[in-house]
Amino acid sequence: MRATVIHAPGDIRVENRPEPEITAPTDAVIRTVATCVCGSDLWSYRGVLPVDEPQPIGHEYVGVVEEVGDEVSGVKPGQFVIGSFAASDNTCPVCRAGYHTSCQHVEWVSGCQAEYIRVPLADGTLVAVPGQPAEELIPSLLTLSDVMGTGWYAAKAAGVRPGATAVVVGDGAVGLSAVIAAKELGAERVIAMSRHEPRQKLALEFGATDIVTERGEEGVARVKELTDGTGADSVLECVGTQQSMHQALRSTRPGGNVGFVGMPHGVQIDGQELFFSHVGLRGGPAPVRAYLPDLIERVLSGRINPGRVFDLTLPLDEVAEGYRAMDERRAVKTLLLP
Amino acid sequence: MRATVIHAPGDIRVENRPEPEITAPTDAVIRTVATCVCGSDLWSYRGVLPVDEPQPIGHEYVGVVEEVGDEVSGVKPGQFVIGSFAASDNTCPVCRAGYHTSCQHVEWVSGCQAEYIRVPLADGTLVAVPGQPAEELIPSLLTLSDVMGTGWYAAKAAGVRPGATAVVVGDGAVGLSAVIAAKELGAERVIAMSRHEPRQKLALEFGATDIVTERGEEGVARVKELTDGTGADSVLECVGTQQSMHQALRSTRPGGNVGFVGMPHGVQIDGQELFFSHVGLRGGPAPVRAYLPDLIERVLSGRINPGRVFDLTLPLDEVAEGYRAMDERRAVKTLLLP
Repeated sequence: MRATVIHAPGDIRVENRPEPEITAPTDAVIRTVATCVCGSDLWSYRGVLPVDEPQPIGHEYVGVVEEVGDEVSGVKPGQFVIGSFAASDNTCPVCRAGYHTSCQHVEWVSGCQAEYIRVPLADGTLVAVPGQPAEELIPSLLTLSDVMGTGWYAAKAAGVRPGATAVVVGDGAVGLSAVIAAKELGAERVIAMSRHEPRQKLALEFGATDIVTERGEEGVARVKELTDGTGADSVLECVGTQQSMHQALRSTRPGGNVGFVGMPHGVQIDGQELFFSHVGLRGGPAPVRAYLPDLIERVLSGRINPGRVFDLTLPLDEVAEGYRAMDERRAVKTLLLP
Repeated sequence: MRATVIHAPGDIRVENRPEPEITAPTDAVIRTVATCVCGSDLWSYRGVLPVDEPQPIGHEYVGVVEEVGDEVSGVKPGQFVIGSFAASDNTCPVCRAGYHTSCQHVEWVSGCQAEYIRVPLADGTLVAVPGQPAEELIPSLLTLSDVMGTGWYAAKAAGVRPGATAVVVGDGAVGLSAVIAAKELGAERVIAMSRHEPRQKLALEFGATDIVTERGEEGVARVKELTDGTGADSVLECVGTQQSMHQALRSTRPGGNVGFVGMPHGVQIDGQELFFSHVGLRGGPAPVRAYLPDLIERVLSGRINPGRVFDLTLPLDEVAEGYRAMDERRAVKTLLLP
């Protein structure tokens, strides 16, 4: 089969590799219908995370079940399924509490920019869509595998409630999805921090009510201005740098919450500053599995259309161009067709 | 009047000072009936916080209103009142959200280890107790001015809910009050971390169900053992050191919460560790004003008896001995009678 392998920073290749096989009775093998490139894939592409040896890459997927292990009963060959980037049993106390990405048996799904993938813990990880979805819904369904679910978790972790004022820090695919999530969870005001016009436009279409182009302390001052000097109820941090975390914490009103889903790189939080801010803080890899049934319903009913974050679609063989376009910020997110 | 002044670390004196006067129309002057020494007073006593010049000290009080400014209408001379260590207007958006210690007009009340004190923003800060309370209730009412309200906030910030498993880190007066709070908010299991027998005993009387004497990683391991390997739903961090914060974060289950009320000294939180923990974190100086009406009711009805944290009572003139006893851990908390 054709599969994407990263050999070194900047060196993405499509190669022939053996098709994955069932290795545990709880596995499923899936023929991918669509996959994509994630902002977090760029960490190794840019050399921020080391690449010690060639490795298959990608963790977002929708597809059709090809084969299941003996113990799999929840999904069957021929079904169109979506799953999280984290395989989870969906039965342990942590999953029952809604934190599937900390499942006591978690396994990270990888190598998804490929024609076939193996998904562990298939019963706990995969959710079948009724029938075969219309082609135009596939990009939106694909986002549920990571970015839309991650934006949803950002909004949940930031405690977005009906009537709230929410700020979204970051205008990548996750930030844009977070705008949708804040809106869907009832935020009355959604302030998107963005200085890129096409992304501003999409944020507004997704429900943002205000755009702030300033960053850092100036961005904080602008949010304060827009909130009568008090700060926002909920801030959704979708970047993961020290600057974005500071900006998020300082934009939040006392008693408000920051949900942070940008994987932190070199971020330190000063205990005393957090103390005097009275801000609540929760982050983590999003338990997107928890949200799949609800989000699938919202996509199928046409209520949300997060697939619009894909502004570049390429055949899998051109995946290297997909990475380049995102690295150079020519594309928000690249969809790949195997 | 007689008032306590700290001159330098370890140098606490009672001196004659002028009685405070109304300086703003929103002030009240109170004759203190009881005051006390706080664990946080020990930061300057021990030289951890600098003492650049002699300064009046103390921030906990109950007393009788002596005089009020022209704009005060909520309390009147002769009433027995309790107030927070932070004066707040109780009307700004931050107070309305329940975070009075971040009030947009906050002022810190100080110099309370004295016969008389001035309380700013009297209408927003003070709550009158019906009639004159029985003498045996005065210690418990006094704790509502800080430690009991702080323990209550720790439990609120840690999201304690009926049926929860809560861990309390710290066995000082705040930690012991936090045990009461966790119990009152419905925790089914309250694990108190303490290696001091008299404090363990009091924790058990206050409602702790388990005592853990280990600290650091061993303490974490013990909590995990007691919670089927998962960690606690809510951890109440009542110390404020790097070690206690680590211990708190690592004792919490994914999706659980840490409420931290020990003022952090030199505490740094690693963004990536917090991210992968899935733990929610909120701290701050406790908005005890928000809890006064409820907690006064619980004390007057005999439902809680937090005054038992006082294990030393001295006349105000012997305040220096009160500090020494707490510094040397001979006393949990010293009550002073002016």
